[in-house]
Parts: sequence; C-alpha cells; structure tokens
Amino acid sequence: MDDDDVDDPQGVASGADRRRRIRARMERLYPLCRSITGDGVRATLDVIEQDLPAGVELVRHEVPSGTQVHDWVVNEEWNVRGAHIADATGRRLVDLADHTLHLVSYSVPVRATMTLEELRPHLHTLPEHPDWIPYRTTYYARTWGFCLPHRRVAELEEAARLGPFEVVVDSTLTPGSLTYGEIFLPGSEEGEILLSAHLCHPSLANDNLSGLSVAAELVRTLAERPRRLGVRLVLAPGTIGSITWLSRNPAGLERIRHGLVLTGLGGPGPLVYKRTRRGARPVDRAAELVVRDRGGEVRDYSPYGYDERQYNALGFDLPVGRISRTPHGEYPEYHTSADDLGFVTDDELVASYDAVLEVLEALQHDRTYRNLSPYGEPQLGRRGLYPTTGGKSATAAVMAMLWLLASADGATSLVEVAEVSGVPVRDLHRAAEDLLGAGLLALEPDDD
Amino acid sequence: MDDDDVDDPQGVASGADRRRRIRARMERLYPLCRSITGDGVRATLDVIEQDLPAGVELVRHEVPSGTQVHDWVVNEEWNVRGAHIADATGRRLVDLADHTLHLVSYSVPVRATMTLEELRPHLHTLPEHPDWIPYRTTYYARTWGFCLPHRRVAELEEAARLGPFEVVVDSTLTPGSLTYGEIFLPGSEEGEILLSAHLCHPSLANDNLSGLSVAAELVRTLAERPRRLGVRLVLAPGTIGSITWLSRNPAGLERIRHGLVLTGLGGPGPLVYKRTRRGARPVDRAAELVVRDRGGEVRDYSPYGYDERQYNALGFDLPVGRISRTPHGEYPEYHTSADDLGFVTDDELVASYDAVLEVLEALQHDRTYRNLSPYGEPQLGRRGLYPTTGGKSATAAVMAMLWLLASADGATSLVEVAEVSGVPVRDLHRAAEDLLGAGLLALEPDDD
Amino acid sequence: MDDDDVDDPQGVASGADRRRRIRARMERLYPLCRSITGDGVRATLDVIEQDLPAGVELVRHEVPSGTQVHDWVVNEEWNVRGAHIADATGRRLVDLADHTLHLVSYSVPVRATMTLEELRPHLHTLPEHPDWIPYRTTYYARTWGFCLPHRRVAELEEAARLGPFEVVVDSTLTPGSLTYGEIFLPGSEEGEILLSAHLCHPSLANDNLSGLSVAAELVRTLAERPRRLGVRLVLAPGTIGSITWLSRNPAGLERIRHGLVLTGLGGPGPLVYKRTRRGARPVDRAAELVVRDRGGEVRDYSPYGYDERQYNALGFDLPVGRISRTPHGEYPEYHTSADDLGFVTDDELVASYDAVLEVLEALQHDRTYRNLSPYGEPQLGRRGLYPTTGGKSATAAVMAMLWLLASADGATSLVEVAEVSGVPVRDLHRAAEDLLGAGLLALEPDDD
Repeated sequence: MDDDDVDDPQGVASGADRRRRIRARMERLYPLCRSITGDGVRATLDVIEQDLPAGVELVRHEVPSGTQVHDWVVNEEWNVRGAHIADATGRRLVDLADHTLHLVSYSVPVRATMTLEELRPHLHTLPEHPDWIPYRTTYYARTWGFCLPHRRVAELEEAARLGPFEVVVDSTLTPGSLTYGEIFLPGSEEGEILLSAHLCHPSLANDNLSGLSVAAELVRTLAERPRRLGVRLVLAPGTIGSITWLSRNPAGLERIRHGLVLTGLGGPGPLVYKRTRRGARPVDRAAELVVRDRGGEVRDYSPYGYDERQYNALGFDLPVGRISRTPHGEYPEYHTSADDLGFVTDDELVASYDAVLEVLEALQHDRTYRNLSPYGEPQLGRRGLYPTTGGKSATAAVMAMLWLLASADGATSLVEVAEVSGVPVRDLHRAAEDLLGAGLLALEPDDD
Repeated sequence: MDDDDVDDPQGVASGADRRRRIRARMERLYPLCRSITGDGVRATLDVIEQDLPAGVELVRHEVPSGTQVHDWVVNEEWNVRGAHIADATGRRLVDLADHTLHLVSYSVPVRATMTLEELRPHLHTLPEHPDWIPYRTTYYARTWGFCLPHRRVAELEEAARLGPFEVVVDSTLTPGSLTYGEIFLPGSEEGEILLSAHLCHPSLANDNLSGLSVAAELVRTLAERPRRLGVRLVLAPGTIGSITWLSRNPAGLERIRHGLVLTGLGGPGPLVYKRTRRGARPVDRAAELVVRDRGGEVRDYSPYGYDERQYNALGFDLPVGRISRTPHGEYPEYHTSADDLGFVTDDELVASYDAVLEVLEALQHDRTYRNLSPYGEPQLGRRGLYPTTGGKSATAAVMAMLWLLASADGATSLVEVAEVSGVPVRDLHRAAEDLLGAGLLALEPDDD
Repeated sequence: MDDDDVDDPQGVASGADRRRRIRARMERLYPLCRSITGDGVRATLDVIEQDLPAGVELVRHEVPSGTQVHDWVVNEEWNVRGAHIADATGRRLVDLADHTLHLVSYSVPVRATMTLEELRPHLHTLPEHPDWIPYRTTYYARTWGFCLPHRRVAELEEAARLGPFEVVVDSTLTPGSLTYGEIFLPGSEEGEILLSAHLCHPSLANDNLSGLSVAAELVRTLAERPRRLGVRLVLAPGTIGSITWLSRNPAGLERIRHGLVLTGLGGPGPLVYKRTRRGARPVDRAAELVVRDRGGEVRDYSPYGYDERQYNALGFDLPVGRISRTPHGEYPEYHTSADDLGFVTDDELVASYDAVLEVLEALQHDRTYRNLSPYGEPQLGRRGLYPTTGGKSATAAVMAMLWLLASADGATSLVEVAEVSGVPVRDLHRAAEDLLGAGLLALEPDDD
C-alpha cells in the first residue's frame, strides 16, 4: 500500500514481517506462567527485550515486597514449581504442567491428602462452558485453588472411589519483589506519550498478550521515526503495577501529555476506544477520529477495566484512554482458556497496530498554526498549489489546504481542524508542510 | 418489596394502606364545590388536615379581598348555595346539586325568567363529547353561565315549548378573603424543597385532586424521615394563589433550593417531568434521572401550564419543575366531567407517589464528597469492601463505590455522578455511607 | 394571502408581479457574455439598475488592472468580440455566437489553422452528459479553449477529413478594470446587513442569475420598508470581486452585523443554509429558524463554495452565511449549459425570495426586551390581552406574549426566544408591540 510506504519510509518492516513478528512474540509469551510478581514476569520481559531495535533499552525495576505504594503494599513474591491433584493411584487428574490456568494464581503451598468433599470448595469451573478452564486469582486472600473444565469434575468423582486425592501446590510466597519494565524513546520536546500494557495474566492471548506484542511492535516502528513527544511504554502487572509505577515517578507524571492503555487488541469486534475520565482531552479527540474512521466505537470512561482506572484516578488525573476490541467481560472467552492463540487473529492484531499508530502520529502532529495571509483566500494558483483550469471541484489536497487556512487562527490545533473538517490529521499535516513551504502559514510555539 | 422496606424502615405505612389512603382522600375531596376563594377551599383544607401525622401542622392563611399581590388584586370571595335552570313547570333541568361543574365558577347571582334564546349565550357544552360537562370559569369577568352535556340541549329545547325558564344562581360575591394552606417539615439545614398543588378546581379528579392527595401522602412519609432540607407544601388556588404566596413570602423565597408542582398524577400515560425555565437546575437533573428510569418523558419549560409559570417568572426565578402524567390539554377528559374518580387509577397514583418520593430523596442526598485516597484505586479488599477471589466482574455495590471514588473531587454532587454513571442516587448514597465509614471519603461542607 | 398583505402593506408588488419581474430580469441577463471583468459585467449592472425603485442608486466601481487587493492583483480586462472553430470549407462548427459557454472564459486571442490533433487539448467536453456544454475558465493561466457537447466531437472528426480547422478567438486582454456594483439602503442605526451575489458567470441560470435577480427583487421590497439596519448589496465577480470589495472598504466592515451570500436560488431541492465559520452568529440562528421551518437543511461552514469563504476568512471574520437550494456540485447540471432558464422554476425562485426576506426581517426585529412586570404572570385579562372565559387553551397570540414575558430578561433577543419557543420571530415581534403598548415591556438599548 502506498500509505504504508509513506508511513514507513525506511522500509524497515514490511507488513508481512510485522504480522509474523506480532504473532511470534505472542507464541513465545503464551506458555509462561505469569502472575503479578515472580519469575514469569521476568521471563516475559526477556521475550519483549529480544527483538527491540538496537539502541532501545528495556529498563527493569524490582520493588521490594512490603514497599508502601500509595494505599497499597507490595505483596510477597509468588513463584510456583508445580501443582497437581492426583488420585489414590498417583494418576494426575489436574496438572499445572498442562495449562497455566489450572492453578489459582497466588495459591499458597499445599501438600495434603483430602476427600473430594474437602477438595470441592477449592475447585473452580464454568458449568456454562464445560470445556473451558476459568482464570482465577487470590492475590490478597491467603488461600489456594484449582481451575478445571467443568466436564472434568465427573472424572474426579469417578476417581474419588479409589480413595482420597493427593493435592500438591509447590509454590512459594516469600519476601522478594514486584518486577516491571519501562522503555523510553525520547522526543524533541519534553512532553511524553504514555503507553501501558499489563503483563500479569498467564496463558490468555487477547487479555493481555495482544497488548504486549502490539506495544512492542509500536516501539520498533516509533524508534525509527522523528518524534516531537517522547514515547514511554510501561509493562507492569495490573493495578498494583501501575500504582507502583505512579508512586515511584511523581516528577515524571507532569511530562505525560497523552496516554493509552493497550489490551484486547486481537479479539473479535470493532475497535473500541474508552475515553479518559474527563472525556475531551486531546488523546480522546485524536483517538475518536481514528477509531470512528475505521468503523469502531467510542465509549465514555467508567472506573472499571484495566490500568486506565489508576492513571485517571483523581489524584493523578492523567489523560490516559484505552484502545481495545470487544472489551473485557463482553465476550464469553474472556478470562478463560478459550482466550488462546487461536482466538486472536493476525488481521485484527495488525489493524489494531495500524490504528494505535495513527493515533500516536496524530498526537505527534497536533500542532497549532497561524495563517499569515488571512485577508481572503490567498492565491494558491500562482504558488502552484491550485489547478489552473477553473470550473471543476477541488481536490482533496486543495480542500486540506483551504481548511487549514480557514482554521489556522493560532489557537486551533490540527486535531480540532480534523474534527470540524473531516480531513484526517495526516492529510492536514501534509497541507501544513506545503503551506509552511509557501510562506502562508507559521507554526505557533508549543505552550504545553 | 425489599426496597420499600428499606425506604420506609418504621413500617408506618404499608403499600396497601397508602393506596387506600390516597384514594379515600380523593373521594372525600371530590364532591366539594371549590373555586379560587370561598368555603369550598376551606373544606378542602379540612380534608387534607384530617390524616396528617401528629405534630404536623397545616397553617391556613386568609388574605382579604382587595389586597394587591404583585400585578394582581385579590378578588371578592365567591360562595354558592345553589344554582339551577328549571322549566315552566318548575322541573329542574340543570342543577348544581347534581354536579359541581354545572355552574360556571364565579358566576354572579341571577334570579330571572328567560327564553331559551336569551339563555343560550350562557350555556356551555362540548359537541364533540356530548355526554360530558365542560369546566368553565369567569373569575375576572362579571358574568354567569351553566355547563351541561351537549346531549341535554335537546331537553332544554323540548322544555322551551312549556314556556320560559326559571334561572337561579344563588351565589355571593362579597369582600372576604382568599384562603391557602401551608405545611412545613423543618430540615437540619436552612434550605427548603417547595411542593405546590393547586386546590381551586371542583370535581376534577386528575386535575387537581390527584396532586392534593399525593402531596398529603408525601407529607406523611417525609414527616417520619430524617431531612437535611426542609419540605414546604403550599396548597393554594392556581395563579392568584401562588402569586399571593409569593408576594407574602419575599424573605422565604431565598430558602427555596428546589421545587415541584404536583398535578395530574393519576391519569393515563407515562410520567412527564417539565423542566424549570433554566432547565438544568439540580431538581431538573434529579427528576430526569428518576423519570427516565421509569420510562417517563422529560420536556422543556414553557410558560403555559400550572403554577410553575409563577414560580419560574423572571422576577422570582425559582427552580420549580413539574411532575405529572399526560399533561393538561393532551387528554380529551381534561377539564370535563370525564376527569372523574374512575379516570384516575390507584396504580398510577402510587407510581407517581413513588417517583416523586425518589426525586425528593435524591435531592436530600445530593451532597458533595471528597476522595481521601485519590492516588489510584484504594485497596477495597483489605477493608472488606471487595470480593476476594479475582477474575470475575464487579458487583453493583462495588461499581457504585468505584464511581464515587472516581468522581468525588469535592465539586461533583451525587446527582451528577448518577448522571454520568447510570447508578441511581440511592445506591450512590449507600456507597457513600460505606466509604465514609471506611475513612475513604469526606463529606464536603454545604455551600448552598 | 393575509400574511403577504401584512408584509407588503403598500401593495407595491403583488405576488404575480414579483414572480414575473424575477423571471424577466433573468431572461435579460442570460444572453450576456460575462466574465470576471469586461463589458459583460457592465451590461449586467445595466439590467439590474433598470427596475430599481426611484431614489435607490446602484453605484459602480472600476478598479484598475494591476491594483493589489490583499494577496491578489486585479487581472487585465478581458473582452471578446467572437470566437469559432470552422472547418476547411469555412463552416463554423463551434461558435461563441451560439452559446456563451462555447469559449473558455479568459481565453487569449488566437487566429490559427490547426489539425484536430493540435486542437484536441483545447477542447472540453462532458462524456457523461454528451449533449451539455461544460463551463470552463482560465483566469490566471494564459491559454485558450473551446467547450462543446461531447456528441459534437464526432462532427469535428468527420470535418477533419476536409483539412485543418480555422480557429479564431477574437478576444482582448488589456489593462482596463474590474467592475463591481453596490446598492445601499440606509437604516435608522449604523449597523448593516450585507447581501452579496456574484455576477461573473455567463449563461448559467441557477448559478448565478437566480442570485442576482432575487437580490434585486429584495432591494425593491426592502426599499419600501422601515429599516433598523442598513442593507448593502454587493454585486461583484466571484473571489477576486469580493476580495476587491473587502480590500477597499476596511472601515465599512465594522458596520456589517450580518450577511448572506445569495446564489443557486431557483434550482431543485430544499432550501440549504450554510452557516458562517463560527456557526452560531445571529444570522445563523435566524436563518436556521426560517429554513428549517420551511423544510430546508442547515449545513456547517466549509471553506469551499462562493464568496462566503472570503467574508469569513480569518482576517475579516464577517458573519456571512449563504442561502441556496441544492448547492454547487451536487446537481449534474451545475456548471453546464443544462443550468439554463428552464432549469430554474418560478416557484422555487419566489419561495427563496420569501425565505430570505423572512430571515432579513427577523434580523431587523431581533431586539432585546425587558419584562417590566416580572413578579409572576401579569394580569393580561384586565388589559384586554387574554380571553375572559377560563378553562380553554391559550391562543397563539397569548402564547407569543407568555413566551416573551418569560424570556424578556434584558439579555435574550427575539431570535433566541424563537429558538426556545418555536414561535416565529414575526409573531414574537407582534407580541412585543402589544406588550410595549400595555407598558409591560421595555425595549433595551442596542449594544451592537
């Protein structure tokens, strides 16, 4: 596609390479047993780091257990070597080795012999989807549990006739640390765009591997482009991770001009942009243009969801929206083993990547201009910017210039012109370059 | 219903008692011959007073004829002992004793013998509804008239062959007074909510007996509840009565924070809220939430209708909306004898009572809070306010808390949070109580 | 019609006379060979001048070639005596004498013998409408061309077998002047309403003759009426003409309170109002009321179209909207010979005239009033302004008074009251006259 070439002039990544890379990264991430702390998080950051461009650094942070982070305290670190339920003959009926979702995340260590009736309160199933394993966690209540397909309960009942079960959770909960990663691409100005993706879910492809892989891919692309605003990617466990990052970067928060939480980018349904709490920040306006143009939906803020609820909390008030496809809780596969690598499609992942990239570029280009020839329309023809034979309709390029000349009052930014005109920000940016070249426009100093 | 019990903890009135009481009050009011002045008004106040709770006083005001009340002058007092049209044999063809609507209200005294042709200009009928008696008044033009079913004109024409008619209006128009009543339930703050119902229409059930009876019932309920704002109920004749009250209470008007005119609450159609003139006052926002939630309609202000037009006049500018069902003039029975006790249903009356009560409670609870833990979401789990096993969706109670925490910036009131969140004010109020208890929220001082 | 009589009290023009006059003016204008300069423009002003009322002057301005007008320079003057393409036998195959559109406007002089292949780049046709002649111009590129029905190309190909063609463009491009006309009807205040119609298109009936003829008719009508605001009609060539007028009247621009560009008033489709750039100026609000009331459409500003794009340019920022029917480029006949006198209908022209007149009258009447009896509704009955028998619905005249009393806060103008109430400005104006007469209202001083 022409547009793709223009946006990617160095030709570093063809579309096919990008598609393969996004998928491959997810395949490497899928088997890792992640939680909000522990070695699974560290291994996840290893995968992300693997194909970063030269010169781009992933910085890892380890925050000790017990650290106070605003209203929260960093938990003990959780790691697990194995976990299973075996029958009286030693046959393993449920085994963490088969699927990372089989164990309730943050389960305390267990080594016990128990009857089915004793075991039952610790079993989680989805009767309405008998073949799927649910995803459950117990970060702050010290207990344990196993998740399994509802259909497998019958096997357990059968096996119960052989005698009591052996239950093993070979986990550790010990003072350690919470791990998160950060990548920063500096801009020519001090302001930054924050990208954030959670990395605490284990084998769930749409929620959260799609966000991690698309975010990593965006970093590759953006690293090669000129940037007015810096781009900062935070990869951290949900809730406690973003709160930890927020608590440790009080000075840095002032530099955040715009932000996006990325998750659920490979599932079904149209693009869905969730607004910031205030709802009409520049990121909201830029994202709405792009998402609506691609047939997507825009929704108002609500205080439930992913880490946008932390960034938008009253005490921080950061302008962070969220881009996903069908959001959490609205598709049956959500938080189950059915959110696997087959559930996310390459077409959706790449379309999400394209949309987020266009939002980010719109924010980079969202400058304010002043018309230097404001007394009537300037004579574009003698500057070679207008068709010479009159009587026909204007071309798209001419319309972009006319809109910009009509709107460049020194206070209206390109995103605002795009909203009024229906002309995409990228086309207005090109028109601005042409008019700057012809001396008809001046760039206003940035007053961020 | 559970909710009813929660709202009515003292159990003073079961729903069935309330339903019977609203109906019984209307039955007692229906036969009285009311107008804008006179003994019918006094008798009406007697009925209202009858079942007020102990300690609640109905204060009566008598304002002498000739008193200037803003642009108006209080009329002479009108009373009537009887009125009829009899044929030459003395047989009464139209008799006030049969229906209070037979006489044009404020008819001057008449005792005359006259032909049908002389009588005709004084007869009012509804040819399109030949069985109904219209309701007509002549408060400010000194004349007289009779209202009758159109079908009965033929009887008069028949009777005219017997000779001229005897016409008697045994009324008095003499210096006296305009009567109105006022009930006040004090609140813990100085501000007040005004309720207003007109009491000048005679045997018209929806317009105005439904408003009187529901208002009296609300007073019973509110008298038993804690009240932040006082509640003031004005029972006065339409137009001249509200203008009289307004003219005699200049200092009191400053205390009115919100107000509702109540009328037409038992007829057909959905609830209809009519906005105040300015259209976005707290009462408008609270009422819109409640009425829309119950499938009702919201309409903009117009300067025609009931006493809301006086309260909202430019010189007073009080925030008084109106709640009714299908409004005046939009149902054929309006201002006719067909607006009788059979026209209003208990279900509609009780549903109106419930809706108005919910609006009043929302206004009582419409406080502003400040989040004391605004740096990210507080850890609700360790305070026992959050489910301990993660991975599932939030409950309604958790959502109400999250919305409140996300919105409690010290400037946004509960009604505004309800608008944005879709969570009813009553649920937000309960969440506020929980969060206040957990020390996560503070109540802002009232700056009314 | 009664309304027509009221609006036209002198009976100067019956509707039938007006209809004939609008049509006759267009018939006289149609054959003239107009461009942006030259004798065609002068002859056009002669026609407009012909039936102006006594005492109304059309002032002509001649601005010399080479004059700098903001970013533009006035072109050399163009005139043409004839132009044709003849075959080798001398038979004229395309002749300007047959249709003014046959020659590309501003074609340079040519006298040459050339083959069909040499001629082809200079021929303009519309293959998709083979019977229509397109309209083309070359104001700023020094070239030439002929426009013809696509079907006639075959004739040229046939004739080419006879030998090369004789091509003659007997035009002159010489230092001269740009001509525009101006009519001014003074008002009792200093402010003005600007009307503007372009006069540079040759035989195109809807675009631009309809605008010229309706504008001249409006001048006739308005000359006979009381005017608070002056009315200024500018008749000038498109783009360069309005920019010239703007550059020569810097002081006068401050007096422009409202403005309308008039064009495309006789074609098909509903009325279409195009907003000013800022979009909520009084002219926008007045025009929206009138156009929507007549089933028309309202569209936002865009910087493409007619001279509204010059008036609204950032450096002038004049509140000038545009009224037309189906706009330029949206009907296939646009800028072709099919936009002829048969394309415009008398019904549409007169309906456009009526609508523009109502907008202009609304702007003349758009004053601000103060309610002198604001404490409740004044007693209209004792002033003879209210029906005396109560119980029925209010009349339209009463509603207009009630709306005005409810809104006359000294800051809300009649157009704003009309927006909220749905009562037309003309009815509110009559109510204002009645209430002024009764001493209930005061006119606020104009603070324009």
